[in-house]
Amino acid sequence: MSILSMDEKQLVWNEKGRKKVFDCNVFSVWESYCSPPGSQLGNSPEDSGGGKLHTFTVLDARDWVMVIPIIGSSDGEKFIMVWQWRHGAKSLSLEFPGGVFEPGEKPEEAAVRELLEETGYKPEKLTKLGDFNPNPAIMTNKIHFFLAENLCSEGRQSLDDDEYVDVALIDTKEVFQGIGKEPYIHALTGTALSLYNARMHKF
Amino acid sequence: MSILSMDEKQLVWNEKGRKKVFDCNVFSVWESYCSPPGSQLGNSPEDSGGGKLHTFTVLDARDWVMVIPIIGSSDGEKFIMVWQWRHGAKSLSLEFPGGVFEPGEKPEEAAVRELLEETGYKPEKLTKLGDFNPNPAIMTNKIHFFLAENLCSEGRQSLDDDEYVDVALIDTKEVFQGIGKEPYIHALTGTALSLYNARMHKF
Repeated sequence: MSILSMDEKQLVWNEKGRKKVFDCNVFSVWESYCSPPGSQLGNSPEDSGGGKLHTFTVLDARDWVMVIPIIGSSDGEKFIMVWQWRHGAKSLSLEFPGGVFEPGEKPEEAAVRELLEETGYKPEKLTKLGDFNPNPAIMTNKIHFFLAENLCSEGRQSLDDDEYVDVALIDTKEVFQGIGKEPYIHALTGTALSLYNARMHKF
Repeated sequence: MSILSMDEKQLVWNEKGRKKVFDCNVFSVWESYCSPPGSQLGNSPEDSGGGKLHTFTVLDARDWVMVIPIIGSSDGEKFIMVWQWRHGAKSLSLEFPGGVFEPGEKPEEAAVRELLEETGYKPEKLTKLGDFNPNPAIMTNKIHFFLAENLCSEGRQSLDDDEYVDVALIDTKEVFQGIGKEPYIHALTGTALSLYNARMHKF
């Protein structure tokens, strides 16, 4: 394997089959049966029995969206962020608003809807910053990032019955300096900030 | 719910029980039975049958590590990055080296081991940049980020039999400007860059 270059043929696996092994309302779990780069294996998942195909476990989910809402105020620029209890971390998290796409929804629609539901704010200007796979090793979906500007407060949230969300206006500088420590525990809030920086041409 | 403040009692859920519903070598999936903020429910998961407890599905995994290796060269600063096929995304990804902790491993040990295995480089200087939960909504674990400097190449990788990794030296500027687009598809590479920026006092 070369140390300094990328040889596609030496890296690309081929999926020969997959099987759903768990399902819930947030994601489904699949086993993916793959032949290694450069191999000429058949199409049967049963090849894995002979040690030829490798099994990888992946999570299928709808796309997600995260929005960076920014407003100016008399004491500087602030991000509109949300406090939420997070059931994976079993902890409170201060993060950018966002969530799961509704079926058939476009990225921009999901961004505006999630921002309005969680914060009560509606943007006049919405800019796509980029998208990533939230964790390409195990996730199949994408997360889309938007910058939301010229925000008007509609005054109230619109939450699901299992959503409890508090809104907070936080100095942008405090967030940039605070990430990687509590309460900024959400890695994708860090991802959002890196896109915001690239957008602001800080490099 | 207040629009501009955080009232902990109004946000914190209580887990009354959990049950493992799926297991594989990368993670296990659990159902977590929780009572909403402010409620006084009993300890039995069976309460959920009466619509009192809510069920959330979470993924338990060992901690992960990601390393930003940086080296100077005659034509500027470069990140040492890795090309890998990612089975969730079913795509090639150009990202920072990293991986899963071995049992009992300390964060620094995991960082040095993963960097050496995937790239053949060993750092003389390792700095903790911070940690996050990779996705606190569904993950229970942490991802730890390190900056690796003063790097010496040992000349060869040490990969598992299902790991195919190519190493690439990429201009730091190219990475900062390229994130949010292919081949920089890994959201946690964006998280790493935001911590790198905070470290470099660009704010």
